[in-house]
Amino acid sequence: MPGAGTDSTKPWHEGGPVVILVEPQLGENIGAAARAMGNFGLSRLRLVNPREGWPNPKSTIFASGADRILENATVFPDVRAAVADLKFVVATTARERGMAKPVMGADAAAAEVAGRLSVGEDVGLLFGRERTGLYTEEVSLADAILTLPVNPAFASLNLGTAVAVVGYEWYKIASSGALPFQPPDRSPLADKGDLFAFFDHVERELDTAGFFHSPQKKPSTIRNIRNIFHRVSLTRQDLATLHGVITALVEGREGRLARRKRED
Amino acid sequence: MPGAGTDSTKPWHEGGPVVILVEPQLGENIGAAARAMGNFGLSRLRLVNPREGWPNPKSTIFASGADRILENATVFPDVRAAVADLKFVVATTARERGMAKPVMGADAAAAEVAGRLSVGEDVGLLFGRERTGLYTEEVSLADAILTLPVNPAFASLNLGTAVAVVGYEWYKIASSGALPFQPPDRSPLADKGDLFAFFDHVERELDTAGFFHSPQKKPSTIRNIRNIFHRVSLTRQDLATLHGVITALVEGREGRLARRKRED
Repeated sequence: MPGAGTDSTKPWHEGGPVVILVEPQLGENIGAAARAMGNFGLSRLRLVNPREGWPNPKSTIFASGADRILENATVFPDVRAAVADLKFVVATTARERGMAKPVMGADAAAAEVAGRLSVGEDVGLLFGRERTGLYTEEVSLADAILTLPVNPAFASLNLGTAVAVVGYEWYKIASSGALPFQPPDRSPLADKGDLFAFFDHVERELDTAGFFHSPQKKPSTIRNIRNIFHRVSLTRQDLATLHGVITALVEGREGRLARRKRED
Repeated sequence: MPGAGTDSTKPWHEGGPVVILVEPQLGENIGAAARAMGNFGLSRLRLVNPREGWPNPKSTIFASGADRILENATVFPDVRAAVADLKFVVATTARERGMAKPVMGADAAAAEVAGRLSVGEDVGLLFGRERTGLYTEEVSLADAILTLPVNPAFASLNLGTAVAVVGYEWYKIASSGALPFQPPDRSPLADKGDLFAFFDHVERELDTAGFFHSPQKKPSTIRNIRNIFHRVSLTRQDLATLHGVITALVEGREGRLARRKRED
């Protein structure tokens, strides 16, 4: 997400499934894929016959700091060589291939990958060429097909985006869904006694101010006001703030200055 | 995913939450965000004070065909104006802000968004500047915070990637998780009778070929071979193929040619 950077004090995630980019056409996209890998805790990159050769300085620019992934990338002449040492291979594709293989979304594929890695079965994820994807012959070398729910009218994902979405589902599992932060610890919820004391404060001041001009409607108006504050799950700190707000409004600027002077 | 394109015969998805890019710095990133929106069924783009002005030809290049999203984008001077007509606003951020707001991942946020849209409450998703994200003041205008599980050592997502991951979770829900295709309908599983007939065929030919040289080990060897084929869930069509394979191996090239000649 924009707005956060590289924190060299934190350990870099290593491992996970191998990402295999098959004949990527543009160095920019290899770099974008490496960046997405780094974001989502993937570190092992293989390149099958990258069109612009390797290494590629444009990849480094687009990796935005995921240099270690590019530096450790290995190059293979074809898919067969690139997956030869792996136990389970998933081919990503947006097109139906008419092959009797399991078809899964990125979430189910991530669960399958995590399960296999946990028992020591090394896994590879194949991503095809920017324009033409994987050849059917290459898909036939895989155990399963990964495809994403996409707008059928506009199904062409950027290569880096495809790696990012798959990596995101992988990291959701690898990190047990832990988000980088949680809301700050809340001050404890106010006791009802404190809440009712606040209601008393508000209602007393409104009475004094002549807010309840219709005695018949007073009970329902009071209920409406109480319901507003009931909905908010106020903490003790919230109540202290709101008592101050009411007092300030009642006193007005002149009254507040006069009180301050008296208290000095 | 690479390898599929725009299919103008399919209806374009409209609606969904509004994506609001706050002071995006580069037209390329606006384009990449629009492309990701198109992929995942989002169509409503708002820009707060884009640095390079608007429209931006570089955005069109990077949108790769999602032109309609760019053409319909609207520009606002600040976040306050950009969200004024919305009912619920989610701010994406990678950094903790110490604010007592709900913090959710993209999956939970997508569920919240879908629920609100379904009862007519319009929703906006705020994405911050490439380098500095959203200002804390801008986050304070939101109802909830969306953050992603990312590698803490490398947390800086490309703007288009952030939009893509959030869009992906949205579209998983909007499309009820339907993948663009399923495995082809399988030929029905073979009956056990057909499977056992295949076992008979294999075992008879192996017997003839002198494969079972140890009579003591023959039963366990047969069990092992049967177990291999039991694991595969063979269809009737698979069995027909395998009968042919066995026959071809037994006959050899010479035998096959001789048989063909006889059959002509």
